[in-house]
Amino acid sequence: MVGRIYNFSAGPCTLPLEALERARDQFVDYRGTGMSLIEMSHRSKMVDGVHCRAIELVRELLSVPDDFSVLFLGGGATMQFSMIPANLLRDGASADYTHSGSWAKKAIADAKRLGKVNVIWSGEEANFTTLPEPSSVTAGDGAAYLHLTSNETIGGIQWKDFPNVDVPLVSDMSSDIFSRPLPLERFGIVYAGAQKNIGPAGVGLVLIRRDMLERCPDDMPLYQNYRKHADANSMLNTPPVFQIWMISLVLEWLLGQGGLSWAQQMAEQRSALLYAMIDKHSGFYRCPVNRSVASVMNVVWRCPGEELEAQFIAEAAEQGMNGLKGHRSVGGCRASIYNAMPIEGAQALAQFMDDFAQKHG
Amino acid sequence: MVGRIYNFSAGPCTLPLEALERARDQFVDYRGTGMSLIEMSHRSKMVDGVHCRAIELVRELLSVPDDFSVLFLGGGATMQFSMIPANLLRDGASADYTHSGSWAKKAIADAKRLGKVNVIWSGEEANFTTLPEPSSVTAGDGAAYLHLTSNETIGGIQWKDFPNVDVPLVSDMSSDIFSRPLPLERFGIVYAGAQKNIGPAGVGLVLIRRDMLERCPDDMPLYQNYRKHADANSMLNTPPVFQIWMISLVLEWLLGQGGLSWAQQMAEQRSALLYAMIDKHSGFYRCPVNRSVASVMNVVWRCPGEELEAQFIAEAAEQGMNGLKGHRSVGGCRASIYNAMPIEGAQALAQFMDDFAQKHG
Repeated sequence: MVGRIYNFSAGPCTLPLEALERARDQFVDYRGTGMSLIEMSHRSKMVDGVHCRAIELVRELLSVPDDFSVLFLGGGATMQFSMIPANLLRDGASADYTHSGSWAKKAIADAKRLGKVNVIWSGEEANFTTLPEPSSVTAGDGAAYLHLTSNETIGGIQWKDFPNVDVPLVSDMSSDIFSRPLPLERFGIVYAGAQKNIGPAGVGLVLIRRDMLERCPDDMPLYQNYRKHADANSMLNTPPVFQIWMISLVLEWLLGQGGLSWAQQMAEQRSALLYAMIDKHSGFYRCPVNRSVASVMNVVWRCPGEELEAQFIAEAAEQGMNGLKGHRSVGGCRASIYNAMPIEGAQALAQFMDDFAQKHG
Repeated sequence: MVGRIYNFSAGPCTLPLEALERARDQFVDYRGTGMSLIEMSHRSKMVDGVHCRAIELVRELLSVPDDFSVLFLGGGATMQFSMIPANLLRDGASADYTHSGSWAKKAIADAKRLGKVNVIWSGEEANFTTLPEPSSVTAGDGAAYLHLTSNETIGGIQWKDFPNVDVPLVSDMSSDIFSRPLPLERFGIVYAGAQKNIGPAGVGLVLIRRDMLERCPDDMPLYQNYRKHADANSMLNTPPVFQIWMISLVLEWLLGQGGLSWAQQMAEQRSALLYAMIDKHSGFYRCPVNRSVASVMNVVWRCPGEELEAQFIAEAAEQGMNGLKGHRSVGGCRASIYNAMPIEGAQALAQFMDDFAQKHG
């Protein structure tokens, strides 16, 4: 037993201790029923209550407009990469995609397998260190939607505002949903794998507007059809009850903390501590991304050489700060500082960065 | 607090208390790491260890041949209804399906949306109370596979043996996998939603033979492609870590009890207690299905009239026996008696059935 550590993993990631403890305390015998919640029929009042409460919390926290359905679907965001074009790009329809990094690339690849895709902006030449000015983005004539990845978990860049175009925005918000208020009136679909700000891996959250649902073809495979899921309130088949329960606990916690305005303020505070330390030791640390789009959820940086990076990561782990290794595709260091990361975790990491740079700089 | 009850729900359903308690005890701080397992990166050694152990237990318990991959996928069995034809029924290929009830119907509906389907046997005229003699089943020329639903959870019928045909069998075994040894050499794919004998809802187990994987087209959406999942050992995207952890705990428990021979023996004992009570009070209870195919996992029966059925279900619940209501599509009573149902639960229910029939018969 080492005591609770600071877990900077990119997802699955740290969850609110309070939510974990509440789940543990009710895990074997849920509310004195003599059963675990995960043993109950998904048609039972208990499970339905948790399910509806989770949806209600999503609606409340994100101010979801009434003409959106809130869905919980298996398969995570990766599943959504194909479900979106499968539902919306039939009969020769096309969509616009922005290519901002590793996750946008996956969304684009699946969309291309299923329909026509116009990549209207790509950060590839800039090695995915920047994003377009939102007001400069325009959608092509007749695009079914415009897709963007609100936060690139691996690259460490984030849309600070969203385009205002004539077509619905569709966005992968896996790694920054619930970290700030959203102008949902511009969106047709917002989707997110749960395993960052929402809960454990194994479920995807989908917010989908009614006119998008009306486009879903009848002849699709059942599980692919958003409309069928919406009509059944995400109980078309047995949903991932455990994840939805955990989401309800995490979002109750978030609401208790102060909701999205609190989350936004804390995200800015946490990330500012780390970016300040990168700036303080600018000859030692190097943040590769354009600061105007630098993520408040995933802060990436390099040390002088891979050996020092490995040492940084190992020594931080010894001091109870885990998961600081950059994604294997890009290397370097990364601190993922989602809603559940206490400010003390960011403070401890900033202090460690300061000490490490002074020692080795 | 009512103490642990006997939970006869069809799925999600009762899980081994020992597995639940082990998960609870490690829930907040997994093995002294200062984190929950569900907070850890899926690329971490801890999660990888659990993941590989779960796969190893599946292989050991089911004696899975080496040329099969073992996959854990989101979306449950419903997702598999379309993944199978999407992978195997391209370019005009056809498959044979047997129509044994509610679940077979769903598999057939999705397959028809994606390819050519020959329904080679249907129990519809007999109201799904029977199944064909396995040795009488033949596959059509050129069928890519022959699909069967090994146990109809709603209808309460079960294949007692499997056809031996020239094409690979593909089977939905959601509600009876791990309840008996399987002749896997006859199968191309076996799939199952976890939420009966394996663990909590939110993951599907897929056993798939190498020659099936070789048929998966390259141009499929990523999440739909079995081969991509197999190449990544089910870590193509973030897997449902919690479910896989619970599966490892449930299967460790099953192994400790004596594995599949124990499970088979216990399933026969539990179901025999209930069928014996139906027979004892044959003027009162009525089991609608052909006894030669009556399920050892889901025992269904009627009382004389819906009022008595409602009373039966309510009084049983008062005595700590929950979930005895038949599926809303068929009504009546149903006792789901999966691996984790103690023999004492079946004994208590049999006693209650005896008392109830004597009182109201």
